[in-house]
Amino acid sequence: MKALVYHGPGVKAWEEVDRPRLAADSDAIISVDTTTICGTDLHILKGDVPAVVDGRIIGHEAVGTVTEIGSGVKKLKVGDRVLVSCVSACGACRFCRESRYGQCAGGGGWILGNEIDGTQAEFVRVPFADNSTYPVPAGVSDEELLMLADILPTGYEVGVLNGQVRPGDVVAVVGAGPIGLSAISGAKLFSPSLVVAIDQASSRLEAAKQFGADVVINNAEHDPIAAVRDLTGGLGADVAIEAVGLPATFELAADLVRPVGRIANIGVHGKPVTLHLERLWNRDVTITTGLVDTSSTPTLLRLLTTRRIDAQRFVTHRYGFDEFVHAYDVFANAADTGALEVVLSRAS
Amino acid sequence: MKALVYHGPGVKAWEEVDRPRLAADSDAIISVDTTTICGTDLHILKGDVPAVVDGRIIGHEAVGTVTEIGSGVKKLKVGDRVLVSCVSACGACRFCRESRYGQCAGGGGWILGNEIDGTQAEFVRVPFADNSTYPVPAGVSDEELLMLADILPTGYEVGVLNGQVRPGDVVAVVGAGPIGLSAISGAKLFSPSLVVAIDQASSRLEAAKQFGADVVINNAEHDPIAAVRDLTGGLGADVAIEAVGLPATFELAADLVRPVGRIANIGVHGKPVTLHLERLWNRDVTITTGLVDTSSTPTLLRLLTTRRIDAQRFVTHRYGFDEFVHAYDVFANAADTGALEVVLSRAS
Amino acid sequence: MKALVYHGPGVKAWEEVDRPRLAADSDAIISVDTTTICGTDLHILKGDVPAVVDGRIIGHEAVGTVTEIGSGVKKLKVGDRVLVSCVSACGACRFCRESRYGQCAGGGGWILGNEIDGTQAEFVRVPFADNSTYPVPAGVSDEELLMLADILPTGYEVGVLNGQVRPGDVVAVVGAGPIGLSAISGAKLFSPSLVVAIDQASSRLEAAKQFGADVVINNAEHDPIAAVRDLTGGLGADVAIEAVGLPATFELAADLVRPVGRIANIGVHGKPVTLHLERLWNRDVTITTGLVDTSSTPTLLRLLTTRRIDAQRFVTHRYGFDEFVHAYDVFANAADTGALEVVLSRAS
Amino acid sequence: MKALVYHGPGVKAWEEVDRPRLAADSDAIISVDTTTICGTDLHILKGDVPAVVDGRIIGHEAVGTVTEIGSGVKKLKVGDRVLVSCVSACGACRFCRESRYGQCAGGGGWILGNEIDGTQAEFVRVPFADNSTYPVPAGVSDEELLMLADILPTGYEVGVLNGQVRPGDVVAVVGAGPIGLSAISGAKLFSPSLVVAIDQASSRLEAAKQFGADVVINNAEHDPIAAVRDLTGGLGADVAIEAVGLPATFELAADLVRPVGRIANIGVHGKPVTLHLERLWNRDVTITTGLVDTSSTPTLLRLLTTRRIDAQRFVTHRYGFDEFVHAYDVFANAADTGALEVVLSRAS
Repeated sequence: MKALVYHGPGVKAWEEVDRPRLAADSDAIISVDTTTICGTDLHILKGDVPAVVDGRIIGHEAVGTVTEIGSGVKKLKVGDRVLVSCVSACGACRFCRESRYGQCAGGGGWILGNEIDGTQAEFVRVPFADNSTYPVPAGVSDEELLMLADILPTGYEVGVLNGQVRPGDVVAVVGAGPIGLSAISGAKLFSPSLVVAIDQASSRLEAAKQFGADVVINNAEHDPIAAVRDLTGGLGADVAIEAVGLPATFELAADLVRPVGRIANIGVHGKPVTLHLERLWNRDVTITTGLVDTSSTPTLLRLLTTRRIDAQRFVTHRYGFDEFVHAYDVFANAADTGALEVVLSRAS
Repeated sequence: MKALVYHGPGVKAWEEVDRPRLAADSDAIISVDTTTICGTDLHILKGDVPAVVDGRIIGHEAVGTVTEIGSGVKKLKVGDRVLVSCVSACGACRFCRESRYGQCAGGGGWILGNEIDGTQAEFVRVPFADNSTYPVPAGVSDEELLMLADILPTGYEVGVLNGQVRPGDVVAVVGAGPIGLSAISGAKLFSPSLVVAIDQASSRLEAAKQFGADVVINNAEHDPIAAVRDLTGGLGADVAIEAVGLPATFELAADLVRPVGRIANIGVHGKPVTLHLERLWNRDVTITTGLVDTSSTPTLLRLLTTRRIDAQRFVTHRYGFDEFVHAYDVFANAADTGALEVVLSRAS
Repeated sequence: MKALVYHGPGVKAWEEVDRPRLAADSDAIISVDTTTICGTDLHILKGDVPAVVDGRIIGHEAVGTVTEIGSGVKKLKVGDRVLVSCVSACGACRFCRESRYGQCAGGGGWILGNEIDGTQAEFVRVPFADNSTYPVPAGVSDEELLMLADILPTGYEVGVLNGQVRPGDVVAVVGAGPIGLSAISGAKLFSPSLVVAIDQASSRLEAAKQFGADVVINNAEHDPIAAVRDLTGGLGADVAIEAVGLPATFELAADLVRPVGRIANIGVHGKPVTLHLERLWNRDVTITTGLVDTSSTPTLLRLLTTRRIDAQRFVTHRYGFDEFVHAYDVFANAADTGALEVVLSRAS
Repeated sequence: MKALVYHGPGVKAWEEVDRPRLAADSDAIISVDTTTICGTDLHILKGDVPAVVDGRIIGHEAVGTVTEIGSGVKKLKVGDRVLVSCVSACGACRFCRESRYGQCAGGGGWILGNEIDGTQAEFVRVPFADNSTYPVPAGVSDEELLMLADILPTGYEVGVLNGQVRPGDVVAVVGAGPIGLSAISGAKLFSPSLVVAIDQASSRLEAAKQFGADVVINNAEHDPIAAVRDLTGGLGADVAIEAVGLPATFELAADLVRPVGRIANIGVHGKPVTLHLERLWNRDVTITTGLVDTSSTPTLLRLLTTRRIDAQRFVTHRYGFDEFVHAYDVFANAADTGALEVVLSRAS
């Protein structure tokens, strides 16, 4: 089969590899119909994720068709069409029993396209298949559903639920890339009074408006702290969501929030940040971090099938599998191409 | 009357000053029977708290007797004996309506011995007296009750409740001074499986044992991170409570905690700290800060009167008002004197 | 002045009475600009509320103008325009300190038009005015704002928050009168996947559709339990909200809910109900009751001013004060007149 | 092998039956070392549980040794000694993913000794063995551990956690049989200010005292409502836990609770109860029901191994397997025999 293979920093190829085989009785083999590229994959290609070694197939999101199942798989059968979640869950460890699948200590967690071969391939082996896939519901397109593999649960769980967004809140989202837009989408489910998006790229701020931001602030041009204070009677935002992963944006998020506010970090950080406890120690703030658990997937599926969320609008570009390398270029140059999510599908 | 007056960094005196007068109809004047010295008072004397100006009477904890009330005071009458809480609450602002009295935006919060004259005096004016005092219950001594003015609610609210201590948890407390001991006392109310106290002073660790710590670690001699890992099968503590206020102790607290753990900061910080988001971004941790609200005072009063908490053991030294300057010396040299709480009482 | 006075079961009059006077220093006198009639007022007129005696002015909702304040009132001044909340709060009792104003043990709670004279009058005395009124925000009409005096916080707090409505939930609302519609409005703030309204009056079900119900069921004609099971794969609703106040409707609500579901009772009950614990004991259900606290008023004000909620649509009929008796007839015959909320305003 | 077999209402025997065999690859066969009799087993023997048919081996609690495992079992191996939980969990259904194992929709829940053969036998087949057993920890006796199969998690989860017991609370427990005593044990973990036990048997009230009740009330002789009001300044208990399962005891629990209080039902009810909504509709009470999930087992294991709970004291009588019929008599006549938990062990 063909797959997108990592060959060390900066080197990738869509090339012929062996098809995956069942390795445990809880595995399934999935024929990938549709997959996508995540911002994390760009980090991997730079060599930032040490677990990813030369020869690894990357990618951790897919919608596909079951072609083979292990003897212990109960909920799937060959021919079923399923969403493959970015997080695999053993279902039996301490963390899985508390629905913290992202922290799975039984061999799951985020392993696809990381510790084991991933979804940017014609076929993928999915461990713990019963706990790591969801049937494709009627009336939902593959590319919509694909947004529930990673991006929508990440914004919802790590941004919105961790940030405890409540009706009437003022929510500031720092970073209006796909993850920030997902956080905006998720926040809107709780009817905030105001969603403020902050970014330095005007194209992203334009997207933020379309995703429901009430106010957008280009922080290359305007002071976002002053702007949020003006919008909140000098108090600050109820919730600030960090969706970039840089020291400066984290510190901005921490500065935006009111006393008794919440700062929810989604960004993947490569460096320490400065936490101004000399200002925050007595302000009753809560700071959260998190890897997505995909525990919200059943909820998001209900919201998708009843059209409470619009997943379609994330998809800006569509390609066939044989255009994978080009698709990476388009996604990597999002500032120029306007790419949000780039979807790749098997030729039909 | 006599009072302990701040006269700029390093200068204080027990000296004659004017008696306080009612300034608002919600005020009460309290004759102070018993008061104490807080670690924060030492910071004030160093000049670290800019709101405290030359001439200010310091102190924010007292048990006393009502001698005069404003026309708007409903719940107190002259002669009532009351606990004076370190936090005053207007009762009507946004924050007070959410029981966040420490953040009171209506003129309250921590103002005694800070923005207005405090309790280390023969008399003190208490604003918003109805919301800022509690009747002395039967069967409780003044010095026990005095521990509910600040130290016990601080450890309980900012350490234990913010840290969400639950039965069976492993709780690590960094710093075994009075606030750390208060956090240990509060944590024990939730039946943790293990309380680990960490400090560099063996006298404090000895006190921690008496307050219920199951394990004590002198981090001048031993690696507390390795020790906590050993105690938890490599996982880390469920909750880490920072009760010192230094960058190193905060970073230690953050390193002690397991995935999905909570870090509750109580310490008063004068400098920024480093937050290792490059390690923590995907570990699902929650970090909280807070000023005490004293919203837990009614709960703590019930626990004190039914002998579920032992407040007496905090009191190591007792003096008359005329020994105030000496009492400060004893408290400031706690490492040598073994002082936890130093109580000063009006001569009877 | 003129007021609507209760004179025993079935007897009421719009008649001349004495103007109210300040009785405590925390009181305000409000000139009523706009008021409305609540379903509870109909109960009062039948003689169902023993605290209401002959001679009482009824009504507990108003928007008006401050004409006089007691010496202890801090946040209001003469001329201010305010929303008068149906619940008065002393602000200092145990329940008020926990934001449970409806249970106020300090002389507040629901007292207007019940234990003391109410708002269906040209002037009303409002106790604890600082804690019981809210400034009229810019850009909001009086009649919209009036919906925040009772009906919207009741549906939101007692129905939606108690019922813990969450994104993706299936919410069944039993009873589509004004309170049921308010619960539907409130539930929509949390993006349920499906709101099911159940009533026996088709005019009310029509209103429910306009307020956002996805499915309406006339339970005079169809079995609502079977219908909800069909909609939920046999499982039942996540949340059932009782908004009628009869044994049969409560029992219906309890039958509609799935295992681990919540049953939130809003209805005012005059008789005991049967709770089928022989079926429910092992189903992990939660049943809540409650009187509105109006603790959500600040949140609802933000949602109203930012147009996240539409309060206008509750108002179906408008009258002058001199038409009060007729307005009661219209409201009492809602099935025929289609009345939801009937607003009465001072002639301008 | 020998087992305790149900043969219709009133008829049981310790008799020879076939040894169980693996039926699914997630099964384990456990050699039972120690088991016990539950109050529910007495109900079964009366014929009250329709799922239990003639020929069924009853019992749902055990500590034993793994003798055989299915091919899909990951966490157990032959020879492991384990606690067999009363609830089996498929680990993959909607309810299991929310840790609601008692509601398992994938073939688990309370099935042992109910829908399938149980633990009162020399060997038992345990489905979903990975999710339904726990390794025996060092330093814990079998009979202590056995209390974690059902009784301790039931009191803790369905009584204490559902009732939201908090430090300082007044907790009233109606019924001081084994389940009520378990609720008392669990409540003490949260440091209530007062635990009140109510029963009509003085021997049970004596046990309640030994388990930590501060006040005991014999409601055959005294009015418990008046007594609890006297203890709480007329207000009522913060939490009332029903641990009997009769209409009268449920109604008593509902009458004991203060406004804003919680009523946690544990009792197994065979008849509907009367809920006095005409009194409760405006009192902000929360009523919960529940089947144990055993989601708290890991917590309780930590509390047992660190000696925060005393499980030993539940065990009043010990027998060999061949004394099973006699043991049932002793347990069924608890009022006379003083039996709490009756433990049966394989001859060593």
